[in-house]
Order: sequence, then structure tokens, then C-alpha cells
Amino acid sequence: MLSLFFENSLKLKDIPRPEPGPGEVLIRVRLAGICRTDLEVTQGYHSFRGVLGHEFVGEVAGPLDSPLKGRRVVGEINVGCGRCDWCRRGVPGHCPERQALGLKGRNGVMAPFFTLPAANLHPVPDEVPDEVAVFTEPLAAALAVGESAPLGPGARVLVIGDGPLGLLISWTLALSGAAVHLAGHYSEHLALAKPYGVITYLEKELPGGSYDAVVEASGSPAGLDLALARVRSRGTVILKSTYAAPYLLAPGSLVVPEVTLVGSRCGPFAAALGLLKSGRLEPRPLIARRQPLERGLEAFELAGRPGTLKVLLDLGTPA
Amino acid sequence: MLSLFFENSLKLKDIPRPEPGPGEVLIRVRLAGICRTDLEVTQGYHSFRGVLGHEFVGEVAGPLDSPLKGRRVVGEINVGCGRCDWCRRGVPGHCPERQALGLKGRNGVMAPFFTLPAANLHPVPDEVPDEVAVFTEPLAAALAVGESAPLGPGARVLVIGDGPLGLLISWTLALSGAAVHLAGHYSEHLALAKPYGVITYLEKELPGGSYDAVVEASGSPAGLDLALARVRSRGTVILKSTYAAPYLLAPGSLVVPEVTLVGSRCGPFAAALGLLKSGRLEPRPLIARRQPLERGLEAFELAGRPGTLKVLLDLGTPA
Repeated sequence: MLSLFFENSLKLKDIPRPEPGPGEVLIRVRLAGICRTDLEVTQGYHSFRGVLGHEFVGEVAGPLDSPLKGRRVVGEINVGCGRCDWCRRGVPGHCPERQALGLKGRNGVMAPFFTLPAANLHPVPDEVPDEVAVFTEPLAAALAVGESAPLGPGARVLVIGDGPLGLLISWTLALSGAAVHLAGHYSEHLALAKPYGVITYLEKELPGGSYDAVVEASGSPAGLDLALARVRSRGTVILKSTYAAPYLLAPGSLVVPEVTLVGSRCGPFAAALGLLKSGRLEPRPLIARRQPLERGLEAFELAGRPGTLKVLLDLGTPA
Repeated sequence: MLSLFFENSLKLKDIPRPEPGPGEVLIRVRLAGICRTDLEVTQGYHSFRGVLGHEFVGEVAGPLDSPLKGRRVVGEINVGCGRCDWCRRGVPGHCPERQALGLKGRNGVMAPFFTLPAANLHPVPDEVPDEVAVFTEPLAAALAVGESAPLGPGARVLVIGDGPLGLLISWTLALSGAAVHLAGHYSEHLALAKPYGVITYLEKELPGGSYDAVVEASGSPAGLDLALARVRSRGTVILKSTYAAPYLLAPGSLVVPEVTLVGSRCGPFAAALGLLKSGRLEPRPLIARRQPLERGLEAFELAGRPGTLKVLLDLGTPA
């Protein structure tokens, strides 16, 4: 079967259809999303070699006796050892021996089929169409912001970055009652946050003032500069982006204002699916393009262009 | 009167005795401590110009009608505007218009006399001798670590840095019931932590393993490298040092393990004085040398040598 494979460079590569191991299921992919982390992987981040991709909606194709057979599913991306303290506490994302779908030690979803432990899966409610369900993983990552920092109703929060993740974060924070400002570079992206009550600014036009919390989701050192400049004393900066470039941190910029800088990664799938099912959040305006897997290289090129929202790979027709 | 003054360079300078303004008292200094931040100021950090020093014990010399007249006192270093939200909440240390003793907009304590608002002062109990009381400010800063991060009894904590601040932090954390490891460079400094039940290591001999929290009190980028390498996933690194050199932060080193990095500065004076009065903590082994103010340049030179513990300036004899 054809796959979008990274080894030194990104290529379309024919690989064998995988066989599910014990406890695993075979998943036929319907839609896959290209994430900024995938783009970083193609720049050598994570030293990953294999099939790319971790955002997906698919259906369980086997084994035949799986209780999930035929169900539409989304799935959590971390596969832990099952024995360490983190795994026993239900947090395989921090298992030291974990694999991560399309990121670490495990082929990802940009192929017609892949495998994942059944325990990682969440059935998708019938009301949630594929192109909504494929946003479960990034929406869960957005919801993780609220788990990383106490942002109660009324908190003044600045979100930096008007890509898909920044927009999802601004929406979820606004839905939770925070007073959210969003700073970005594209008026047409910023417009997507206004229906949620988010106040938006082109970054260069952001007015003065400080915030209880700032979420850096721009994936650039300049975003973290802005975050540290705009967070109030004893406030919190939540860092959502992993990128290869190092950031020149002045220790005094944390110590003098006693600021907290916290990294945030994966989030709660069940809550994300619930939010998508409720209809209170509509991710489809984030879709920039759907491309078939065969045009995956082109899709990555497009996704890498500044200002492109979510590019989806369409695997709707079984190969 | 003679003062230890910084303007482009550190010098002994004759300045007029200050007059206390409204709400202020005149303090005659008995002992002053040289802090690493003072050394950073002499390297241009903070762009400060004036009399150096913020660690002191003294006695109230005026005005004559002050209820504190003649009392031995220590004092908090931040002087806020008194009107902003931070000041109204009793946290002048984050007032945007604050002055800080010997650091920002206000002459410090390395002179026979200086002034401070009476509201900043804490009387020193008779049981606490001068050379113990002079540690109130750094001990309060050490206690602030416990305010910055939830380090309950049983928490596994690594403290990096065996200078006076690192030692005080290791002591206070051990007294609060944490399981404390201390990593440093000087066996004779590390030995000072053992009576408190702290397990000590030369940094190069620190065994493997990760910690719930790591306190970086070495004041060096290498210390922060070690802290981020040794904190567990979702653990906390508490940054106590301000230094001019920038730190090359890899954003992934916070985001992937979802680590919290929090800056911590000044702490609770009343709690520090209470601990000193209790006798459960004995800071005098931290004293490397007492020097008269007249030999202040030599004292700074000594304090700046690697491996020197606390250097005190002795102003016991009124000038």
C-alpha cells in the first residue's frame, strides 16, 4: 500500500499492510490531518523514520472479532509500556518507553491502514462527520491548555498564533468563559475567532497591556518574546509549540516577574469529542484543502506555506 | 558618610547622610550581606546607579518620634507606589513603579545609614543575633521556593548550587519534609547541608534519576541544563537566579515533558524571622568573612571568587 514516508526526506513509499499485534486493531484511514509537528518532523525534528501522521479519523477494519469492527474511531497517539507508573496512572504520554503515532517508534496514519491498541480508540458519534472528527486530536491539544494553567472564567488571556491550533485554543478558552484576545498575522484567520467572542488583533496592532496568561501557539521564537513581554507578574505563559530553533531566554524575564512558563502537549480526547458532538465548536472553517494521499507531497508543500490552515489527506476511497 | 557606590564601577564614595521622607525611618546599618545579585549589578545588570546592598540588619536611628526608634530591624526591599493593585494586595514587589533597595531607584544598605518606609520593617527578636538576622532576606527568598511550587512532604527535590542561597533552600525544603538532594561543586559546602538530612553530591557524581522538582540556584546556564535534564515529566523547575547571560532554551524540552519552569524571587520575612528565632536553622556556618565597609572593594572581590560563601560588611561601629 502507498504511504507518506519520512526517511531523510519525505516520499511516497509502498509498504506492506500492517498486521495488528496483541491488543491492537487495524484501522482503515478516512481522513488524516497535517500538523505543524509533522512539518517539523520533515525538518529532522524527533529523528523519526516511518509513516508520518497522527491526526486521523478511520474505521476499524480488523481483527474480525474486535468489538469495534466497522466502527468509526479516532485515537490517542501515545502507546506506553503499560507497566510504568505513568502508564498505570493512565498517562502513557509520559511513559519513558512510549511510542507515538507517526512521531516516535511507530508508523503513523498517512497510509490506507495502520495499527493502534484498541485501548487508544474512541468511537466517533454518528452526528460527528469525518471532517469534524479529524480535528479531535488538535482540539484535545487545545483543551490541554486549560489543564496546564488555572484559567478560570474572567481570566484575561492572550493567544498568540492564528494557525489551526491557535484558533482552536482561542475558541475553547472563550467557550470556558475566559476573556480572550488573539494575535495573528492573517485577518481572514482572525475572523474565524470572532463568532466565539474572541477579540482579535493583527500582531503588529496589538494594544498595550498585560494578561493573566499568554498561550504561545505561533511556533516561533518571536511568539515567545511577545508572550513574555505581555504576561503580567506572577502570570503564566503556556507553550504549545515544539520547534527546533532554540529560544534565547533571559532568566531574569522569568525570575523578576515570577512568571510561570509551562509546556503543554496532548489533551483529553473524550472532552474534545464531546465538544465536537455538542456543535458548540465548528472546526470545518479551518480546512484549507483536501488532497488525496497520492498528492501528499504537494499537500505537505501547501501545509508548509505560511498562512495555510489545516490540510487534510483524503483516504476515503480504499486503495 | 562613606558608602559602597556603583556608577560604571564600584567605588567607595562619600555621600550625605539621607533624611527620611514621610513614612520613612532612618536606619543605622549593623551588618550587610553581599548577594550574588549585587555582584551582577556590578556587571551592569539592572542598570543601577547608587549605594549597593539589600541584605541588612540595623537599628532605627530616627525620626525621634518613631515607635521603632532604637529597635533592631530587618526590612523588605521593595517599595511600591502604594496605589496600584499589587500594592493594595500587599505585594509591592510586583508594583510596576516600585523601587528596590540597592537595586532599582533607591540607595541600598552598604553605608552607615539609609532610609526605608517604616512599613517595610520587621523588628528582630532579642534571641536572634545580628549575624543570624542578616540572613533574613536570603532565607525569605529560599522560603519563596515553597510558595512557587507545591512541594509537599515526600516530594523528591534536587537543589542545584551550593552557594548560600542553594544551601538555605536545601535546608528549608528538608525541614518542610521534602526528600532533598543537593548538587554542588564544593565538598565543604555540601557538608553544611548534611545536618538537615539533605543527601549531597558533587555535581559530576550525581547519580541518574529524575525529580518531582528541581531548584536552580547555581546562577549558571549549566545549572538550568541540568535542571531540565533531571526534572520528571510534568515536574517543576524553580528558577532562583537572575543573571545576565541568556539561556538557550529548546522549547521541546518544556513542551514534550510538559514541564513547568517558574521564576521565584522575594519571600516571606515573617516566616524567615520565625525560623531563625526557632533555632531550627543556623545560618552562621554560611559566613565566609566579615569585613569593615572601608574594605568593601576587597569584600566584593572576595565574594566574587567561585566557592566563596556569604561575605558580610561590618558597620558595627557608627562612622
